[in-house]
Amino acid sequence: MPEPISLREKLSRFDDHWNPRVIAELNGQHVKLAKFQGEFVWHDHADEDELFMVLRGSFRMEFRDRAVDVREGEILVVPRGVEHRPVADEEVHVLLFEPAATRHTGDVVDARTVTEYQWI
Amino acid sequence: MPEPISLREKLSRFDDHWNPRVIAELNGQHVKLAKFQGEFVWHDHADEDELFMVLRGSFRMEFRDRAVDVREGEILVVPRGVEHRPVADEEVHVLLFEPAATRHTGDVVDARTVTEYQWI
Repeated sequence: MPEPISLREKLSRFDDHWNPRVIAELNGQHVKLAKFQGEFVWHDHADEDELFMVLRGSFRMEFRDRAVDVREGEILVVPRGVEHRPVADEEVHVLLFEPAATRHTGDVVDARTVTEYQWI
Repeated sequence: MPEPISLREKLSRFDDHWNPRVIAELNGQHVKLAKFQGEFVWHDHADEDELFMVLRGSFRMEFRDRAVDVREGEILVVPRGVEHRPVADEEVHVLLFEPAATRHTGDVVDARTVTEYQWI
């Protein structure tokens, strides 16, 4: 049966960066939590739109032609096919909504690529 | 191009209860904001799971055999086919994530049923 999920409690369970954890699934979509710090890899997702919601802190989303700051209490939807790179000068806590099949580095595979997401 | 969306700014645009507004769409899913106060109608969604995230305040989600409190910073996923009724003793601000086709009163139509969701 449905039980409430505390975002704060789930965030306390991990400390590493760029390694999203799954906390819920609905309609073939995953709700994930992640901590970002530093620069991620340039990538896109050919078939998946991706939502970022900032729970604490802020980060900069770079696109090939510009960048936007995403602050606490804001969401950003990156449409499929749009190359992007998140950059966080300081640690930021982010909630992600995206199809369960989404690989966080998109079509790029690097040392940080996670192929099997961990549920917490 | 993607622009950050402030939840606080969007919430300031309406004051009525039980009337969700759409703020984003991705992968056939809507992100909505709503304000709840009082008792909603018992309903279920035959084909759609529904996510509730409390942004401010708290509410009680009643099921036929029990109830759970959902507080600020918590999410609750109600699986398809599970009858539920949100009840808020005081006003609560909620983010909803659900398929774009979802009707908030499910299979029930009452005076509050919205058939065409407004984008803000």
